Amino acid sequence: MPCKTVLASSVAAKFTEELKEQVAAHPEHRPLLVGFLANDDPFAVKYAEWTGKTCVETGIQFELRRVDREQLEEAIVAANADPAVHGIIVYYPVFNNRQDQYLQSVVSPAKDVEGLCHVYCYNMYHNIRFMDEEKTRKCIIPCTPLAIVKVLEHLGVYNTILPYGDRLHGKTVAVINRSEVVGRPLAALLANDGARVYSVDVTGVQEFSRGPGISLQRHKVVDKTESVEDILPLCDVVITGVPVESYKVNTALLKDGVVAVNFSSYRNFSDDIKQKASLYVPSVGKVTVCMLQRNLLRLAAYQRPQPANAP
Amino acid sequence: MPCKTVLASSVAAKFTEELKEQVAAHPEHRPLLVGFLANDDPFAVKYAEWTGKTCVETGIQFELRRVDREQLEEAIVAANADPAVHGIIVYYPVFNNRQDQYLQSVVSPAKDVEGLCHVYCYNMYHNIRFMDEEKTRKCIIPCTPLAIVKVLEHLGVYNTILPYGDRLHGKTVAVINRSEVVGRPLAALLANDGARVYSVDVTGVQEFSRGPGISLQRHKVVDKTESVEDILPLCDVVITGVPVESYKVNTALLKDGVVAVNFSSYRNFSDDIKQKASLYVPSVGKVTVCMLQRNLLRLAAYQRPQPANAP
Repeated sequence: MPCKTVLASSVAAKFTEELKEQVAAHPEHRPLLVGFLANDDPFAVKYAEWTGKTCVETGIQFELRRVDREQLEEAIVAANADPAVHGIIVYYPVFNNRQDQYLQSVVSPAKDVEGLCHVYCYNMYHNIRFMDEEKTRKCIIPCTPLAIVKVLEHLGVYNTILPYGDRLHGKTVAVINRSEVVGRPLAALLANDGARVYSVDVTGVQEFSRGPGISLQRHKVVDKTESVEDILPLCDVVITGVPVESYKVNTALLKDGVVAVNFSSYRNFSDDIKQKASLYVPSVGKVTVCMLQRNLLRLAAYQRPQPANAP
Repeated sequence: MPCKTVLASSVAAKFTEELKEQVAAHPEHRPLLVGFLANDDPFAVKYAEWTGKTCVETGIQFELRRVDREQLEEAIVAANADPAVHGIIVYYPVFNNRQDQYLQSVVSPAKDVEGLCHVYCYNMYHNIRFMDEEKTRKCIIPCTPLAIVKVLEHLGVYNTILPYGDRLHGKTVAVINRSEVVGRPLAALLANDGARVYSVDVTGVQEFSRGPGISLQRHKVVDKTESVEDILPLCDVVITGVPVESYKVNTALLKDGVVAVNFSSYRNFSDDIKQKASLYVPSVGKVTVCMLQRNLLRLAAYQRPQPANAP
């Protein structure tokens, strides 16, 4: 079978090593990540457990705080103000409605390891990569989209011969999921790096791209009349995140040698994907947890009196 | 029939007069409100038309810009930066998902006449009424919740003998709708002003209050086990905003002499409400449009070089 299955653990390994070294290098500044869990959602609980386990491995301090959802906002505000806390993660869903998006922006940008507060989202969509004119403080990128970028780098989809920021030029990618937390930011990130991205959800297909010859500074979005069946055969990379057990990508539509990446908690590709794909990544969760910690170390460094030595 | 029906137009009349006077007082600073319409939603179109008509009446300049939804974000960013534009309103829904909430925070707080960007929402929930320590710039309150507050003031529900900020002390209010745009902010506003508020949606009942003797600085929220049938008989005021034609409040459950206010585009009270209520307000839209313009004049004043003479 020519398809190579790449496990998230193998991508995560080098990041875990880097994290360990960075934490060990500053024993006097062991950063504290605080996780807030205000629900019993099994995926949220699992994500919280994973965070804890990986932090033990890397040496980051992790404190899981279980709070009533009605006390969560005040708990976040207190953690924002507490200098002992370097990073904050909230395990969503909490209210499972738009109030969750409000809560995302209650987390201070200085401690938002998830990169979900408005200023980070805005900067990401606008391809603004630094928080300051002097380019000393990088913007935080949401963990799951960032993890998928790192997976694609690992897989060689990013071409390092091309200049930084244009390394997906020539690639066509489908992202099946257009949530505000993963699918839409991911489509924007990949398009900002030069790809032509087809963003797919139940309402239809959109194209995110920087135009012919990646002439635009940042992506623009165009509604398409094509269906997912029309665009899948064009794609070099297909990334799925459909949170439904029964959903499966129709393997017959995929290009031979496609790169297939699944970030759903369910398997969105059928078993026959290995007859079609060149590279298959069944999950990305372990890389996501690394990115969370990477974001934490960055923010912790920015919080130090100075000189700010960003990891 | 003892029930008095109060039309939004009669509440709006005095605000329209005030707006006219304020605009006429500064002919050299006629403010420009820009409305963005990126959909064909009939209520959004109607709201845009109303805005236009009322602006003609008050002398405010209004410019409706029809844009493709994919161009909307850039159009907002351009209007944020344009000194000729004093206020911005977006007629939602645009994408009718969480991307709309992202767009709300793309509007600059300096021009956000709707009061929907994160900083205004956060300040409202936290009962922070000014943007600056010196208390020279008031926070903008979302238009529909603010309109309902003004309706309740008009109806005498706010007791002006009590100190400002506590004028609903002793009142019990139901708000049937807990959307992020109207119901939840409204519940918070009323609770911050001293009321005990039951916030009702399909997921259940919550209580927003400042505790016994309104001892807290701002409201807290508690999940209740009571149903809407349990709490409605306790309420002095019932405010509804259920966007469903078939939904009707069960009049039999209401307290005799209740104050009934409907802000849904549909009539959430049955015709027999007039046999039960002391005051009935069938809609608030015309007051909402006044609040929009009131917010605009305030923001326009803050944008003037100075002295900032807030209306």
